[in-house]
Amino acid sequence: MVAIPGPSIIPDRVLEAMARPMPDLYEGELTTVGADVRARLPAVAGTEGEAFLLTANGHGAWQMATSNTLARGDRVLVCESGLFATVWGEQTARSDVEVEFLPGDFRGPVDPDALEARLRADVDHEIAAVLAVHVDTASSVRNDVVALRAAIDRAGHPALFMVDCIASLACERFEMDEWGVDVAVAASQKGLMVPPGISFVWAGERALAAHDRADMRVGYLDWQKRRVREPQYLYFGGTPPIAHLYGLRTALDLIEEEGGLPAVWHRHEVLADAVRAAVEGWSTPEGIGFNIVDPAHRSNCVTTVRTGSIDAVELRRRCREEAGLVIGLGIGDAGAFRIGHMGHLNPPMLLGTLATVEAALRSVDAPLGGSGVAAATEVIGAALAGGEGSA
Amino acid sequence: MVAIPGPSIIPDRVLEAMARPMPDLYEGELTTVGADVRARLPAVAGTEGEAFLLTANGHGAWQMATSNTLARGDRVLVCESGLFATVWGEQTARSDVEVEFLPGDFRGPVDPDALEARLRADVDHEIAAVLAVHVDTASSVRNDVVALRAAIDRAGHPALFMVDCIASLACERFEMDEWGVDVAVAASQKGLMVPPGISFVWAGERALAAHDRADMRVGYLDWQKRRVREPQYLYFGGTPPIAHLYGLRTALDLIEEEGGLPAVWHRHEVLADAVRAAVEGWSTPEGIGFNIVDPAHRSNCVTTVRTGSIDAVELRRRCREEAGLVIGLGIGDAGAFRIGHMGHLNPPMLLGTLATVEAALRSVDAPLGGSGVAAATEVIGAALAGGEGSA
Amino acid sequence: MVAIPGPSIIPDRVLEAMARPMPDLYEGELTTVGADVRARLPAVAGTEGEAFLLTANGHGAWQMATSNTLARGDRVLVCESGLFATVWGEQTARSDVEVEFLPGDFRGPVDPDALEARLRADVDHEIAAVLAVHVDTASSVRNDVVALRAAIDRAGHPALFMVDCIASLACERFEMDEWGVDVAVAASQKGLMVPPGISFVWAGERALAAHDRADMRVGYLDWQKRRVREPQYLYFGGTPPIAHLYGLRTALDLIEEEGGLPAVWHRHEVLADAVRAAVEGWSTPEGIGFNIVDPAHRSNCVTTVRTGSIDAVELRRRCREEAGLVIGLGIGDAGAFRIGHMGHLNPPMLLGTLATVEAALRSVDAPLGGSGVAAATEVIGAALAGGEGSA
Amino acid sequence: MVAIPGPSIIPDRVLEAMARPMPDLYEGELTTVGADVRARLPAVAGTEGEAFLLTANGHGAWQMATSNTLARGDRVLVCESGLFATVWGEQTARSDVEVEFLPGDFRGPVDPDALEARLRADVDHEIAAVLAVHVDTASSVRNDVVALRAAIDRAGHPALFMVDCIASLACERFEMDEWGVDVAVAASQKGLMVPPGISFVWAGERALAAHDRADMRVGYLDWQKRRVREPQYLYFGGTPPIAHLYGLRTALDLIEEEGGLPAVWHRHEVLADAVRAAVEGWSTPEGIGFNIVDPAHRSNCVTTVRTGSIDAVELRRRCREEAGLVIGLGIGDAGAFRIGHMGHLNPPMLLGTLATVEAALRSVDAPLGGSGVAAATEVIGAALAGGEGSA
Repeated sequence: MVAIPGPSIIPDRVLEAMARPMPDLYEGELTTVGADVRARLPAVAGTEGEAFLLTANGHGAWQMATSNTLARGDRVLVCESGLFATVWGEQTARSDVEVEFLPGDFRGPVDPDALEARLRADVDHEIAAVLAVHVDTASSVRNDVVALRAAIDRAGHPALFMVDCIASLACERFEMDEWGVDVAVAASQKGLMVPPGISFVWAGERALAAHDRADMRVGYLDWQKRRVREPQYLYFGGTPPIAHLYGLRTALDLIEEEGGLPAVWHRHEVLADAVRAAVEGWSTPEGIGFNIVDPAHRSNCVTTVRTGSIDAVELRRRCREEAGLVIGLGIGDAGAFRIGHMGHLNPPMLLGTLATVEAALRSVDAPLGGSGVAAATEVIGAALAGGEGSA
Repeated sequence: MVAIPGPSIIPDRVLEAMARPMPDLYEGELTTVGADVRARLPAVAGTEGEAFLLTANGHGAWQMATSNTLARGDRVLVCESGLFATVWGEQTARSDVEVEFLPGDFRGPVDPDALEARLRADVDHEIAAVLAVHVDTASSVRNDVVALRAAIDRAGHPALFMVDCIASLACERFEMDEWGVDVAVAASQKGLMVPPGISFVWAGERALAAHDRADMRVGYLDWQKRRVREPQYLYFGGTPPIAHLYGLRTALDLIEEEGGLPAVWHRHEVLADAVRAAVEGWSTPEGIGFNIVDPAHRSNCVTTVRTGSIDAVELRRRCREEAGLVIGLGIGDAGAFRIGHMGHLNPPMLLGTLATVEAALRSVDAPLGGSGVAAATEVIGAALAGGEGSA
Repeated sequence: MVAIPGPSIIPDRVLEAMARPMPDLYEGELTTVGADVRARLPAVAGTEGEAFLLTANGHGAWQMATSNTLARGDRVLVCESGLFATVWGEQTARSDVEVEFLPGDFRGPVDPDALEARLRADVDHEIAAVLAVHVDTASSVRNDVVALRAAIDRAGHPALFMVDCIASLACERFEMDEWGVDVAVAASQKGLMVPPGISFVWAGERALAAHDRADMRVGYLDWQKRRVREPQYLYFGGTPPIAHLYGLRTALDLIEEEGGLPAVWHRHEVLADAVRAAVEGWSTPEGIGFNIVDPAHRSNCVTTVRTGSIDAVELRRRCREEAGLVIGLGIGDAGAFRIGHMGHLNPPMLLGTLATVEAALRSVDAPLGGSGVAAATEVIGAALAGGEGSA
Repeated sequence: MVAIPGPSIIPDRVLEAMARPMPDLYEGELTTVGADVRARLPAVAGTEGEAFLLTANGHGAWQMATSNTLARGDRVLVCESGLFATVWGEQTARSDVEVEFLPGDFRGPVDPDALEARLRADVDHEIAAVLAVHVDTASSVRNDVVALRAAIDRAGHPALFMVDCIASLACERFEMDEWGVDVAVAASQKGLMVPPGISFVWAGERALAAHDRADMRVGYLDWQKRRVREPQYLYFGGTPPIAHLYGLRTALDLIEEEGGLPAVWHRHEVLADAVRAAVEGWSTPEGIGFNIVDPAHRSNCVTTVRTGSIDAVELRRRCREEAGLVIGLGIGDAGAFRIGHMGHLNPPMLLGTLATVEAALRSVDAPLGGSGVAAATEVIGAALAGGEGSA
């Protein structure tokens, strides 16, 4: 079993859908599948804007977002929190734009007040875009996108607001249009339950309009050339990623069969509550603890657990080599591990993960506040009693 | 997740090995695979006797065992315990043999003393064969095969001793030759981790010799015709079960890669200890309890759990419909459920099963002695501390 | 590519359907699939009688046919033609019945007049059953089942008429009830496009009634015990062959999607015509020729080709090792090979087989009357011109 | 069957390798597979330079080639021939470089003399790069890369020489270093037998050095950042394309098992000779004919066939709907179809394609010079006689 924060577990039906002979490129089934997926993508991010599907990983989607909206010399403000906003910023800095980091913290979210203050200070509106992540896979923080948008609005700043929801999409509620996000970026291998290899960019009107002044265009990623209806290969920027397209269509079907995104978000919330109950149960001052201090900012798709005096490396080794469970390694300096709880996951899989971590903790004589998994069964038990169908 | 007492979970590698184009029947790879599997089968049951592989389910293997050894009018003694020995006896009774049942109990093992007494009483040696199961999938009892053999020996009785180890093979230690078993019977879908569709009969010298007087021969199942080396289709009694053969070879490879049968048996014991710790933890006088009274006779591959005042039907429904976990239904009149813990199973899968059952128990407000899964994590934790590689 | 007379090519969708996790045995999807397959089986053989599905290969189905209808001492008349009726007779002779062979020929069909004459001579009606094959996989003859039934009727003989349509079912038209067949026997790995491992017996009223006097009953194969509706495992004689059931359901779906059995039979006829055109094209007095002399008795699912002075062993080796094509070896003394053209087959696959055989014939400097594959393209071309959808 | 010029047929073993659960990203098997594939890639293109593997289609690889080597204002000379060099040029023109086209023809190769003349005229060496394709998938021409290099050398011009071998790699001999190519570009879905989704760029020393002055860097595609050994995700520009990596490793294994690239090239040549014999056989003045006039420039991986007075659309429809064969549509104005003969292909598959096309031609009463497939069997027959193992 693998419980890392992505790639998440791929459902058998998705694997089956991908393992097919190659179809004709120009006629028949493939064009139907491509059109179907394209039509369904905007709703996944809660937008009526354009949705682009790239043969690229998430870094490629980051690139499409910036390449189609920025001009040489533009200034970009990156809201640090955890790791990945920073990496996005560093990638962006390789082009001829100036990247500035709004300092953040590994144990908390972006501060909307700090964002507002910086934007107010930018009286000449040199900042063309604000970059942030929704959930940071390293720290497991969930930023408050609505609050960040409000900060920009309060500052009366025209910068484009671009949000990376790679970790959170199809796990946590995300409403691009309602929340005032101009560009959203995601990838296939987390909540969408498809192997890595394709990624997505959603763009609203203001972002699409910015293409006019963007002067660092990259032919392969130029979204203007992809906005046509036909022929289909233009939308895909060349040969489509056939196997992934079939897999994605099946993944979208699975989401619908479960009851749509609200049902999926609810399941993630219940399962995340179980994870948090377990970590709370294990917690001691010298041992286990949450990385994210404020409970309101702990994400529903990944949890970073600090291990204090416990040897996190040995813990992960025992899980993996003795018990067949792969959990995520901690990123950063402190001892930590991460539990991914995103995508194709139900109570037996999640509780099995938590119980095995608990067994491994016991095997290293870790100080434990109590049985975390027992607490987690109470959370799941309450959900089952509610008859809500958490699986 | 499915945690029923068979068919057990099929490893991905086995499914892959089965999903292949059909090869040539007469030359090349298939003949190699067939010969390889045949050569490895005797050791699986701990015998130097013959191993037969049938395209048939376990009932077909029962049939081969009796059809090749009994003559019309023979008397057979069936050692009741749970359900399946009885069913084997009833099937046998459809041929022209007299079937007698040694009365047993749903909550305990066959009594060796009762067996000895009955055989001593058979002074004319009318009983041609004694039939017993090693582990009964319904009651979850494990009979003491060594003790039963000793009882036969003490009675000085020449009856053939036939043992059904369908549920236990490749889960629990089974040593056909060392334990004095004349015929052993098994199938693919339990410890051997292959879908149902093939089964096995192992026969020692005395059993093979009995073929001479057996006069109810069934051409399809006649083991004498299958004892040749070549051509291979004779061994398989016609067209071989190709997909299953490829799957079985891979399953045998998986067993070897794990360290051979002793390692597999050990893993099952650790995991079964965890199950028993959980049931013990949940137990209350009015609620959860073991079906098998004597701890020494609780099997390592399936556990039948009595539910007392708890509604077992609703419990299973919640597990299945709300949490995605299928556990086995209880067989017999009392409220019960069964947890299969056989075959391709590791700590995350097993603990996930136990924790989900616990959540479901909580959801129906079942009286609980305590957290069973917390107790199970202690068992697994101790095994991990031992560094024994229980997964 | 494999073009042997069974196992035939398994469609990808069938392989996918089989490669699934094991479901619950007692509830849910599996019971639906089992009931669905059972309900659809009678029509596959053109009968309103009972259809039994065994976990066994074709030899097991032969066994069920005879074990449920014959009594000790019965006489059985086996109509020789090619190989497999003889093998069925030999298997039957291992039980306590007397088996008599109506002599046949490797190059032609059973002679209805000879059958009539033998039955007329049986004035005391000692013959309880007449056994014949529809298509013999070795000689590639197709017997005229209607003519054999007429012969029995003309003789006014009450013997049961049992027909093995293992090779022909779902390839050639077969109408059990209309043709007056009492028992039909088939298996999964030919026209039904599922790997070997399950087989079928269809029984009409007279055959079912014969069970009363049948006294060599075999519990595992006793069809009386399988005639109940519930619980389902009784129909399957124990644990069902789950993977094969899922595969078979998909194969039946594929047949329906093609337009039902008449469409499938028509496709086989067109493709067989192409094979025959090719063999005709290659034919020379000293070289290639049909094994079956009378064109009216050449089957639509397999063609046995005599090679005269051409080295058939080297020919097959070149096809296999140099060109990646496995064709069937000839059975019997003369040089021969066999081309299977049954099941999941379309023009590119069949023509590729014929063209590769032609290339191999050229490579050994075989005397050739002309290009067989060119002639085959004319047959297929005419079918395409008819717009009938031969693939 | 699909016989289009890519995506080519994916071997079952590659599909199997891809259909696996996601592994850990940071440790274990995945890092081994990634390192293994990376180490084997340079030899695939015949270079000791760097090999980059992108999550992108072929257009993404084109982009990496130009983005890492060109500076704003550079002039690029695109050698037209068929379609794809032109498309590459048009994509390149979206960046701030000047793109000039050396006029070409749809029925022939790039003219080395014209290239030499143009370069000689560029006395100030304004042309920074010459772009050409090895095989054009639309026209099916194979350009003479060695002759083009010689032309550049004769002109004494320092331009980088970049070659797209997307269609030809692992089908036709390609020797990057020996032939003096500075950058080569390819993708997974042709000779490498993996679904579309990843692509490749190989860069020699001169090209790598050009990165210093390249000022249109694209972070995602910046090859400088990918040249490190560790951590691995830098090489992949973020999350690796896991499923494709496993598939590619297996495809490289298949190539090795066949005897390495020389054996693969030889097989393609034999099969292409068979295609050409068939087209030659069908040819008539008013009907079938080669698109590429000069036999020396007909590629070994795709053949564009002009249909003259024959209705190519109806021909393709019959192949597809009536016979189950998908052939490629013609690109350009004249009636045409294309046969892909690249990748995972053996004589039965190829001859089946040719014979089915022939049947379809007959079905529309096309004028035919003779049986093309009969001629193709002679080519394959001669290869089999040579005992060279053409499959």
